Amino acid sequence: MKKEIMSPAMKTEGKGVKVFYGEYVNEDYLFGYISRIIYGESGLQNIYILEHKFWGRLLFINNNLQFTSRDEFVYHEALVHIPIQSAPEGFIKRVLICGGGDFGAAREALKYPSVQEVIIVDIDPKIPKLVREYFPELLPEDPEDKRLKLITEDAYVIVNQYLQEEKTFDLIIIDSTDPDIGETTQELSHALFGVDFHAKLKKICPTGIIVQQCGTPFTMKNILTGVYRIYKEVYPEEEIYIYRANVPSFGSDNAFIMKCPFKNPQFPKGIELSNTRYYTFEIHQASFALPKFWKEALEL
Amino acid sequence: MKKEIMSPAMKTEGKGVKVFYGEYVNEDYLFGYISRIIYGESGLQNIYILEHKFWGRLLFINNNLQFTSRDEFVYHEALVHIPIQSAPEGFIKRVLICGGGDFGAAREALKYPSVQEVIIVDIDPKIPKLVREYFPELLPEDPEDKRLKLITEDAYVIVNQYLQEEKTFDLIIIDSTDPDIGETTQELSHALFGVDFHAKLKKICPTGIIVQQCGTPFTMKNILTGVYRIYKEVYPEEEIYIYRANVPSFGSDNAFIMKCPFKNPQFPKGIELSNTRYYTFEIHQASFALPKFWKEALEL
Amino acid sequence: MKKEIMSPAMKTEGKGVKVFYGEYVNEDYLFGYISRIIYGESGLQNIYILEHKFWGRLLFINNNLQFTSRDEFVYHEALVHIPIQSAPEGFIKRVLICGGGDFGAAREALKYPSVQEVIIVDIDPKIPKLVREYFPELLPEDPEDKRLKLITEDAYVIVNQYLQEEKTFDLIIIDSTDPDIGETTQELSHALFGVDFHAKLKKICPTGIIVQQCGTPFTMKNILTGVYRIYKEVYPEEEIYIYRANVPSFGSDNAFIMKCPFKNPQFPKGIELSNTRYYTFEIHQASFALPKFWKEALEL
Amino acid sequence: MKKEIMSPAMKTEGKGVKVFYGEYVNEDYLFGYISRIIYGESGLQNIYILEHKFWGRLLFINNNLQFTSRDEFVYHEALVHIPIQSAPEGFIKRVLICGGGDFGAAREALKYPSVQEVIIVDIDPKIPKLVREYFPELLPEDPEDKRLKLITEDAYVIVNQYLQEEKTFDLIIIDSTDPDIGETTQELSHALFGVDFHAKLKKICPTGIIVQQCGTPFTMKNILTGVYRIYKEVYPEEEIYIYRANVPSFGSDNAFIMKCPFKNPQFPKGIELSNTRYYTFEIHQASFALPKFWKEALEL
Repeated sequence: MKKEIMSPAMKTEGKGVKVFYGEYVNEDYLFGYISRIIYGESGLQNIYILEHKFWGRLLFINNNLQFTSRDEFVYHEALVHIPIQSAPEGFIKRVLICGGGDFGAAREALKYPSVQEVIIVDIDPKIPKLVREYFPELLPEDPEDKRLKLITEDAYVIVNQYLQEEKTFDLIIIDSTDPDIGETTQELSHALFGVDFHAKLKKICPTGIIVQQCGTPFTMKNILTGVYRIYKEVYPEEEIYIYRANVPSFGSDNAFIMKCPFKNPQFPKGIELSNTRYYTFEIHQASFALPKFWKEALEL
Repeated sequence: MKKEIMSPAMKTEGKGVKVFYGEYVNEDYLFGYISRIIYGESGLQNIYILEHKFWGRLLFINNNLQFTSRDEFVYHEALVHIPIQSAPEGFIKRVLICGGGDFGAAREALKYPSVQEVIIVDIDPKIPKLVREYFPELLPEDPEDKRLKLITEDAYVIVNQYLQEEKTFDLIIIDSTDPDIGETTQELSHALFGVDFHAKLKKICPTGIIVQQCGTPFTMKNILTGVYRIYKEVYPEEEIYIYRANVPSFGSDNAFIMKCPFKNPQFPKGIELSNTRYYTFEIHQASFALPKFWKEALEL
Repeated sequence: MKKEIMSPAMKTEGKGVKVFYGEYVNEDYLFGYISRIIYGESGLQNIYILEHKFWGRLLFINNNLQFTSRDEFVYHEALVHIPIQSAPEGFIKRVLICGGGDFGAAREALKYPSVQEVIIVDIDPKIPKLVREYFPELLPEDPEDKRLKLITEDAYVIVNQYLQEEKTFDLIIIDSTDPDIGETTQELSHALFGVDFHAKLKKICPTGIIVQQCGTPFTMKNILTGVYRIYKEVYPEEEIYIYRANVPSFGSDNAFIMKCPFKNPQFPKGIELSNTRYYTFEIHQASFALPKFWKEALEL
Repeated sequence: MKKEIMSPAMKTEGKGVKVFYGEYVNEDYLFGYISRIIYGESGLQNIYILEHKFWGRLLFINNNLQFTSRDEFVYHEALVHIPIQSAPEGFIKRVLICGGGDFGAAREALKYPSVQEVIIVDIDPKIPKLVREYFPELLPEDPEDKRLKLITEDAYVIVNQYLQEEKTFDLIIIDSTDPDIGETTQELSHALFGVDFHAKLKKICPTGIIVQQCGTPFTMKNILTGVYRIYKEVYPEEEIYIYRANVPSFGSDNAFIMKCPFKNPQFPKGIELSNTRYYTFEIHQASFALPKFWKEALEL
C-alpha cells in the first residue's frame, strides 16, 4: 500500500477556535487545556471562555482562571457557607458581594431563607452577561429572586455611598480576581484591597463577617500574607480566621480569610443545608486546619 | 538555609495575557507560542493577536495563523511579485485584491510605479483597523498612496458590481483565509472559492492574471487540490501554474495557484525591484519547481 | 535599523533536553512543565526525571508524576504520620513498605525512635539508585540508619515468604504507582492490588494498620472506589478509614485508605514530632473530613 | 440527570507514555506533539522516540528532531541525490557518510547501481539498533546490500585512518546532529565540524564532493554561516554551493552546503531515478535558488 504523504486539512468542528491554551500557574509551570476558545475579548478586562471536554467551560479573567463549570461549586460553597454557618442561625440577613458578578456566591447565599437581601457590586458589566449566556448553572435557583440586586459599579464607590447612607450588612464577601499585592509593601495596586477599603467595610459591617478569597498560597503566597497583614491592621487579631478549600481546577488549596466576631467559627452554628455538593459540617470544621507550612508563612 | 515551600505570585508584565498558545497544524500536532494575547475578539471572525519574543506579532483569524511580523514579507512577496513579474513589463495597471485587508499584498503591488490602481475588498472592517494599530509595517510605504482604495464589503458583491459596470483588472489576487474545501466534492463552503466566483473573475480579468493562495498542502492537501480542480474547470489548463514559497511560520511550503495567459511565467519579464527581502528573479524561477509528491497529488 | 530576519540557534544550557513536557491529568487536560529531561529510560518502567525552575526535580514513572522535590513532603508525611499517630504511642515497631523505593515513606517512619525496623520492598532497582543520585533529600536523615532494609523484589513474593516465616508487621504501607483498576470489575491489573494480596497482608499484619495511597479521585475516581471495594471485602468495614491531603503538584486532593483496628484514628494518639513541614495534629484530624461529593461517590 | 463530578482515570492505551512533547525551535516557540514516548534514554546522547498520529515516528537526539517517518525522505533525498547528480554520471563510486547511522542517506546512495561502496561511520551504536527496530523503512531496499559497511566509531578517528591508508572517496556526506557553532568564533564545539576536519576530508576526497547539512537557517542562522566560513577557509570559493529543501517537520527550509569541483552543479548530469518521492531534476535545479535574506546573511 502506498503511504500517504500529504494530509487533508483538519476539519473545523464546533464553535470557536481549537487551541492548546496553557495558563501560567507559576514560573515555567502551566495548566494546559486542549479546548476551544468560544469567547474572547480584550476590553476592560481580558476575558476568555474555553469549552473543554473534562472541565466543561472555563472563565479566565486577565491572567487567571476564575472557575470551571465542573468544580466552581467547591469554591462558591466554601466562600459562602463557611461564613454564614460561623454566625448564629438566622443572623445573616443582608449580604454585600464585592465583585462576584458571576452570581455563584449569590446563588449560595440565597439558599438560606433567612437571607433577605443580596447585593452584587461588580465593576464589569460583561461578567453577568456572559454568565447568563455561558454559565447559566451559576445563576440562583430562582433567577428572578427578588432578594437579589446587581449593581454595575466600582465597589469602592458603592461602599462610600452606603457609608454615607449608614446602610449596614451582616456579611460582606470580597469575591474578586486576585489582587496585586507586593511581598514587602503595604501599598496595594488596587483600591479595593487596601487598609482604606477595609476600614470602610468595617464601618458598614460593624457586627458581621467580612470574608475575602486569597488565591492559592502555594503558588501565590504574597496574596494571602498581604491580605492577612491588612486584616490585622483593620480588625482585631482574635477575630481573624483563615481557612482553605481544594478547588481541583485551581491545583493547590485556595485560601480564604475571614473577620468573624463570633467565637469558635470552626463549629457551624446553623442548620445544615441539603443542597450542597462540597460543603458539610465536617468539612466546615476541617477547613480551618492549616498545613504547618501555611502557619509558618503566616507566622501563626 | 531553609528551603522555600510557597512561592509569590508571578508578576504581571506588559500588556495582555501571558499564555502558551498552541495552534493546531494537524492532528495532535501544534505550533506552540509562549506569548501574550494582546488582542482577542470573537465577532464576525475570531481574531487573536499575540506578542511573541521570536515572531514579533502574530495575527490569527479563526483557526489559522495569518502572518507574523517577522516573516510576512515572504508570503506577500511571493503572492504579488510572482504574478506581476510573469506579465510583460508595465502590463499590470489595475489590481483587485479580494480579502487582503491586512494591506500586505497592496504594499507589494504599490512598489511598481506602473501600477495605477489597487483596490482591496475585505468583508471584515476589523482587519484594516487592527493592522493600522498592531502591524503598521504592513501598510504601503506611502500610507496615503492615492492609488490605493479599501472597500469593506463581501468581494462577491463587489465583483458582481464590477461585472455590471464592465470594469476590468489586470491582476486579481485572492488573499483570504483558507477556504473550506472538501476532498471529494466540488461544492465549496464559501461562495468566494467556487467555480461561480471564478467564472465572474474571468470576465472582469479577461486578459490578466488571477492568483490565489492555497495553504500548505503538506498539512492541508485538499485546499490545493480543490482550488486546482476549480481552476481547471474555469480556465484553460495550459494557463494554470502552481508555485510555492516557504513561509517559516507556516511550517511547510505554501502553495499558490495562478491563471496566467502569458507564456513561460517562470521567467520573470519585468525589472527586478531592489526593495524586496525574499523575492529575486532566481527565486521567481525556482518557485515553479514542485516536489514529486506534490505533482503526484495533483496528477501532474 | 535593519530588522533581523534569521536568528541564531538557541544556546544549549545545562544538562539534558529542554522541552515542554505535558503530563496528562485527564482528557485534554495537562500539567505542563517547561523543563529539562535530565534522565530518561524505557526499561522495566518508563522513568523520566525533569529539572524545573519552580518544582525542582520531578520523577515520572509510566504515565504519572510520582513526586516533586518541592512538595513530596506533603505526600509522604500524610502517608506515614497519619497511620502511625492513629495507633497508640509506641505501637508501631515494624514497618513494611511495598513499593516506596524512593525512600520518602521510610524517611518519615524512621523519625519515630520507637520504630525498630523498616523494610522497603520495591521491584525496580532503578528507583533507589536514581533517588540517591537525583533526590538525596528523600533519603533518611541518617542514610546509614541500621533499622532500614531495602529489598529489590516483587512485594507479592516477599509477602508470601513472610507469610511462611510467620513474620508480622505493625504497619504496612502500600506506596506504589497508581494501580490499574477498572470501574466495574474486581479484577485488578496488578497482583499487588487485589483481594488476594490484601488477604495475605491481613495475615502478616493481624493487629496493625494497612494504608494504601489511592490517587486523586477527582480525576481518577475508580482507583479510590476500587481499592475501597477491596478493603471492604478483606477488612471489617468499621476499621476502614479514608483520608486526604492536598499535594500541590498533584492538583486535586490525594486519597489514602487505611485499615486501622484502633478506635477514633482521627484523634492522634502519639507525641507530635517537630520535624515535619506539613503534618500537625490539627491536620491529622482534618484529613478525615471528606467533601460531600467524595462521600457520595463512595456511598458513605 | 445528575452531573458527574469525579472522573475515572484515563485508560492506558498502547505502548509508552502519552505526553505533550514540545520541542523548542527558537525562543518561546515550540513544535508540540501529542504523542507517546516509546523509547527514551539519556546515555551517550539523549535519544527519544515518539509515536505520533500525524508524523508516524519521530527520532530526537539531544535537543533536536532528527527525522519523522512521514517526511524523512525529503531530507535524505536532498542530502544525497543533489550531490550525486551534480557529478558526471557514474562518477560517484565510493561514498563515506560521517554520522548517518540512521541509514537514510545510505539508502538513497545505494539506489545508484554505479555506487560500489557506502561506509557509514557513526559514533553512537544505539542509532542503527533503534532504526532497525523502530524505523525499518530507513534501511536500504536490500538490507543485506554487500556494498554497505557500518562502522561504530568517531568519524574523526576513521578519517585519520583513511588518511594514513590513502583511501579516497568520491562523495563524503556529513549527516550529523546540528553542530554547536558560535556566531563570532571560528572555534567549534565539536571536532567534526572544524577547519581541521575538513582539511582532512579534502585530502581523502580530492576530486569529489563533500556535502554537509546545516540546519534551518531561519531559526539557526549561525550554523549555516559558521559552516560556510569553514568551507571558504578550506575549499576554493568557486567550488562552494548552498542549496535548500523544505522538510515539513523542520518548519523552515533546511540548508545544505556542498563543495563540488564540477561546473554548474545546478544542472543534473546523471540519469533521473524513478524511485524518489521528493527529488526530481526540476527540484534539483530549484534547490540552488536562495531567498534574498539568505544571500544577505551569507554576504553573497
